[in-house]
Amino acid sequence: MKKFMDQDFLLSTETAKTLYHEHAAVMPVLDYHCHINPEEIAKDRQFDNITQLWLGGDHYKWRQMRSNGVDEYYITGDAPDFEKFKKWAETLGKAIGNPLYHWSHLELQRYFGYEGTLNADTAEEVWNLCNEKLHTPEMSVRNIIKQSNVTLICTTDDPVDSLQWHKQLAADDSFDVQVLPAWRPDKAMNIEAPGYLDYLAQLETASGISIHSFADLKEALKNRMAFFNEMGCRASDHALEYVMYVPADDAELETIFAKRLSGGTIEREEELKFKTAFMIFVGKEYHKLGWAMQLHYGTHRSVNDLMFAKLGPDTGFDCINTYSSTKEMAAFLNALNKTDELPKTIIYSLNPADNAGIGTVLGCFQGPEVRGKIQQGSAWWFNDHKTGMTEQMTSLANLGLLANFIGMLTDSRSFLSYTRHEYFRRILCDLLGKWVENGEYPADMKVLGEMVRDISYRNAVNYFGFDLSI
Amino acid sequence: MKKFMDQDFLLSTETAKTLYHEHAAVMPVLDYHCHINPEEIAKDRQFDNITQLWLGGDHYKWRQMRSNGVDEYYITGDAPDFEKFKKWAETLGKAIGNPLYHWSHLELQRYFGYEGTLNADTAEEVWNLCNEKLHTPEMSVRNIIKQSNVTLICTTDDPVDSLQWHKQLAADDSFDVQVLPAWRPDKAMNIEAPGYLDYLAQLETASGISIHSFADLKEALKNRMAFFNEMGCRASDHALEYVMYVPADDAELETIFAKRLSGGTIEREEELKFKTAFMIFVGKEYHKLGWAMQLHYGTHRSVNDLMFAKLGPDTGFDCINTYSSTKEMAAFLNALNKTDELPKTIIYSLNPADNAGIGTVLGCFQGPEVRGKIQQGSAWWFNDHKTGMTEQMTSLANLGLLANFIGMLTDSRSFLSYTRHEYFRRILCDLLGKWVENGEYPADMKVLGEMVRDISYRNAVNYFGFDLSI
Amino acid sequence: MKKFMDQDFLLSTETAKTLYHEHAAVMPVLDYHCHINPEEIAKDRQFDNITQLWLGGDHYKWRQMRSNGVDEYYITGDAPDFEKFKKWAETLGKAIGNPLYHWSHLELQRYFGYEGTLNADTAEEVWNLCNEKLHTPEMSVRNIIKQSNVTLICTTDDPVDSLQWHKQLAADDSFDVQVLPAWRPDKAMNIEAPGYLDYLAQLETASGISIHSFADLKEALKNRMAFFNEMGCRASDHALEYVMYVPADDAELETIFAKRLSGGTIEREEELKFKTAFMIFVGKEYHKLGWAMQLHYGTHRSVNDLMFAKLGPDTGFDCINTYSSTKEMAAFLNALNKTDELPKTIIYSLNPADNAGIGTVLGCFQGPEVRGKIQQGSAWWFNDHKTGMTEQMTSLANLGLLANFIGMLTDSRSFLSYTRHEYFRRILCDLLGKWVENGEYPADMKVLGEMVRDISYRNAVNYFGFDLSI
Repeated sequence: MKKFMDQDFLLSTETAKTLYHEHAAVMPVLDYHCHINPEEIAKDRQFDNITQLWLGGDHYKWRQMRSNGVDEYYITGDAPDFEKFKKWAETLGKAIGNPLYHWSHLELQRYFGYEGTLNADTAEEVWNLCNEKLHTPEMSVRNIIKQSNVTLICTTDDPVDSLQWHKQLAADDSFDVQVLPAWRPDKAMNIEAPGYLDYLAQLETASGISIHSFADLKEALKNRMAFFNEMGCRASDHALEYVMYVPADDAELETIFAKRLSGGTIEREEELKFKTAFMIFVGKEYHKLGWAMQLHYGTHRSVNDLMFAKLGPDTGFDCINTYSSTKEMAAFLNALNKTDELPKTIIYSLNPADNAGIGTVLGCFQGPEVRGKIQQGSAWWFNDHKTGMTEQMTSLANLGLLANFIGMLTDSRSFLSYTRHEYFRRILCDLLGKWVENGEYPADMKVLGEMVRDISYRNAVNYFGFDLSI
Repeated sequence: MKKFMDQDFLLSTETAKTLYHEHAAVMPVLDYHCHINPEEIAKDRQFDNITQLWLGGDHYKWRQMRSNGVDEYYITGDAPDFEKFKKWAETLGKAIGNPLYHWSHLELQRYFGYEGTLNADTAEEVWNLCNEKLHTPEMSVRNIIKQSNVTLICTTDDPVDSLQWHKQLAADDSFDVQVLPAWRPDKAMNIEAPGYLDYLAQLETASGISIHSFADLKEALKNRMAFFNEMGCRASDHALEYVMYVPADDAELETIFAKRLSGGTIEREEELKFKTAFMIFVGKEYHKLGWAMQLHYGTHRSVNDLMFAKLGPDTGFDCINTYSSTKEMAAFLNALNKTDELPKTIIYSLNPADNAGIGTVLGCFQGPEVRGKIQQGSAWWFNDHKTGMTEQMTSLANLGLLANFIGMLTDSRSFLSYTRHEYFRRILCDLLGKWVENGEYPADMKVLGEMVRDISYRNAVNYFGFDLSI
Repeated sequence: MKKFMDQDFLLSTETAKTLYHEHAAVMPVLDYHCHINPEEIAKDRQFDNITQLWLGGDHYKWRQMRSNGVDEYYITGDAPDFEKFKKWAETLGKAIGNPLYHWSHLELQRYFGYEGTLNADTAEEVWNLCNEKLHTPEMSVRNIIKQSNVTLICTTDDPVDSLQWHKQLAADDSFDVQVLPAWRPDKAMNIEAPGYLDYLAQLETASGISIHSFADLKEALKNRMAFFNEMGCRASDHALEYVMYVPADDAELETIFAKRLSGGTIEREEELKFKTAFMIFVGKEYHKLGWAMQLHYGTHRSVNDLMFAKLGPDTGFDCINTYSSTKEMAAFLNALNKTDELPKTIIYSLNPADNAGIGTVLGCFQGPEVRGKIQQGSAWWFNDHKTGMTEQMTSLANLGLLANFIGMLTDSRSFLSYTRHEYFRRILCDLLGKWVENGEYPADMKVLGEMVRDISYRNAVNYFGFDLSI
């Protein structure tokens, strides 16, 4: 029996251990997609207690507590922080097989030096230990990032964002981790959303361009893209229900947009046409700028009206959208590709049943600009666990070249999540080790070591074209 | 090499063996969903031969025989019982990797003390041995149930059922296993079915309420639900093509219902609207009664017209419906939840590709009434095997709390199927054992033992609120 | 650690080794579905170099090169053959976990005696070694086939094909491998295709029947089927987007056909109706002839317009179609079955998520004509790897009788692909060995050996009814 989460956690072969310890573990972290707040980095926030840090906004944990029958009072309610932590500790003790069990204990080991297990019995001990540590300077946000060996972070930012904290960080010589914006224009695309017109007003202000037509909207977005690009942006991000393709001509699109501007209600078909046109427009711009286009699809968000009314979005009430169409996905990529304007693209589905479909679409649109121009993104959100990552990488290897994979990102709102890169690398090394020790690939440790270093870090640096030495 | 199906069958680690033998094996069986006939318990039926017991109505076995090219004469036809048994034995010998191979041999081992393997060569030996045993008192239906350590059984019953056998069993002090009804109102929902009006007439008789409107139908159903509740019913069950959500207002629903009453043909859209309204109505009633709502979806039934004409329903001609929509499933649960009337719900799909989708929908609707209020049901029907159960539990653990899972049911028409609980528990213990021995969860045998006892039995007792000591 | 691809490649248990070496390896190869050119057999083609043989038309390899960022010049362009080979060798070195890694090295081992690994460093050595060998008589097409222990090959042929090469081969006593045609009438079905009318003209010529109606088309096809049947054809093949079922009556079908004949544009609904009727017509004919109907579905072909314009079809720009409906699939089979005219049918989906759905549809339409009358085809195209084959066979075993499976085919355009049968057999034996050594099936090597021999070869001979001794 292996010891619980020791140095060889998840590494079941000697090959895997060597690959992990000698190659994966020494590579820096490039976190090219996350949701942390740059203001907290700029201000080098310090946390009062572990509840703030762990349970302040992490809806992964909230969902588990709700699954355990915990009352909302202890989750997002007014219960004292220690009470909340106890409820979490009790829940975690039952989370066998869940990635939160591993993430939480990796964080306790790496950042707090705690080698025990967190559960109802140890909650107080862990609470005290963590909080003591959190009050030391080494646990400020910047120091957490530095000790995690992070070289570059991409946040997720709205086109109207001033990027003031990114500016401040760029100008601050005392912190040499690059903190770059990533472009997420969902609000500009979601023409059916109730607050769309308000959002356009914000975009007018940010861009200095009046928006009376779809053409104007495009100009305003181009203006903001130029600004983001100056600020070092190299990646966009899109949250899509699915990758749709419902083409329409310019006249029809302007009619739809005008209808929305004048307060009309947008039909589903109109919405899909507008979103298709929007995505084709931004895709072509990304191609010009050399940005990567990230498509995160397969989600229904905020499906629980009762809780949405109480807590708003991103509070743990999202699920997989099982509808998706490779036919439309391929048609969308083809629409960009046929004029040779397809940008680097990374496709993530929340539905693990989509792995093979995506894997075969990728192969239809590769190009010589960069190795692995069209990527399947790392196992995302609900799939961000041993099963999901193993399946995604196995599928990728079966259908394409795993060696060109740009690897892991945290997708996180927490500053302790960098251990997810460690988690990913262990799973990667274990997968490669099993193949090698089963005689499926030569035991050439030089080749394998380089491959692990590439997937852990260097492929992403090359793919996005970041200014980092490798 | 492990011996064929010995005491450590499917238990590949020491942890798994300890968990199974010391914890899982000692727990009673709560069979909260099956299709056995309560009359046969009441009358304490004795079987003449193993063909009656095994091949009388088990369409799982019939399908395998048909796959083996066996003529229908030996399956549902007039062949002598021993001839049928020989054809089954020959078929079973070829069923490597199939759960029937394991179920059949578990039954031969546990109920008949036969440790060999059944195939064409041993058919006669097994036939004689089984039939001899079947004629002993210990193999009466009640004694089979008692020796299986069953404490409670939920049958599956139509709203019009008099529940006379349940009454008789409840009054019978000589048999202390609880035999409770479960409510399955499919015939009241399936407005498009040819015999719908005849069914309504039966429901009028059973409830004493005339049905001239959808409102009347609801009253009649409420009347019967009250009766079922008095009889100890704690669970409903629904067979759905998929979990649909097509809302309509009361007036439209009454129009649809009136159309059907007057002999009109119901369009597909009308059918979906009526079924949606029906499910919302019963869901709210279940919430009031504290019943659990079981949704079994993802099936096309009786797809072979030729055989349906000969044999009728439930004869082995059903398949997976690959269409399903988490969007509608979530919207349906939301429709109940937004007025805080969502009952405890257990969702089963026949399509294993739905596991992750369901697992993420659950997490959006949990509540503090009971741990794991919304459950994914155990791997169902065609998925009721090592692969299916392992995948379902792994998915559950990845996305939620496996520790709160209410576990196994037989879903069976046979009195020998209680060994499927053993099969499930072995797979559960093996899964937990692998995680523990791989360092993914602490080897705390006390915690793990309690978890196994919970999932094997106690969670279900608590969840349904049965009157059983744990 | 196992050695890289040695004699026990993929065989992880002693049982697997025995089954493979003593049973699987000794069986001949029946390649009942492939895309090789019979002319090249008839002329006993000899290849100049390994690039011709490996990279001349193999779009599996082309896709991988594109994924590696290789310029099209080195793939389908004018680069010298050795330059192309070097690019391929470099790409292959990165293809860890990909079936091409295994296929390529199996081919190098079995046909060229090369035991090393192919990568950028060894490209020149392998190039020289292969080309030297290719110039020897033993590497003529016929000798490759003979040394591969092939007894029978089914090519894939259009109804208008004269089958002249098949005739020539049948008459040639110096080559005793049967080379039979298989019937692939896609062009006669694809009424929406631009060249449909031209195709009908070819069919008129081939059949000597004028086609002025759908009824005429059927007569022409019957004429050609009779000819194919005389030439030894026992199997048809169909490429379908999905298995559709949209019934229509004869009058409507004739109207649709007449519209197409007169140059009208066919709507999607009309297309589906026509294709449904077409498939039902041919299905009934296959039933009369005793042919097997192969349905290959789940593909979107040529989704990249830019590359289609340059390279045409079958050049590596196809992907999985995630849309499919078991409801329609079952309805289609039912439409044939209800008049007892359902032929032997083999269903392949490109989407591995369809495995369970297909597996349950099979079981609804089995019949006594032959064991396993309705088959799920071997893991196809993008699924033709260890994961895909293991999943397909596991699903088959879970849901039906793996022992009746007709097993592997190459589906290949290459004469070196017979090693894929070896690959399949190793995976089959490993799967069976694991079950046996885990105590899930008795270690009866006689029964298991026969089962392996059946699945490797004999089941296919029986199923199709080929004139071969077994």
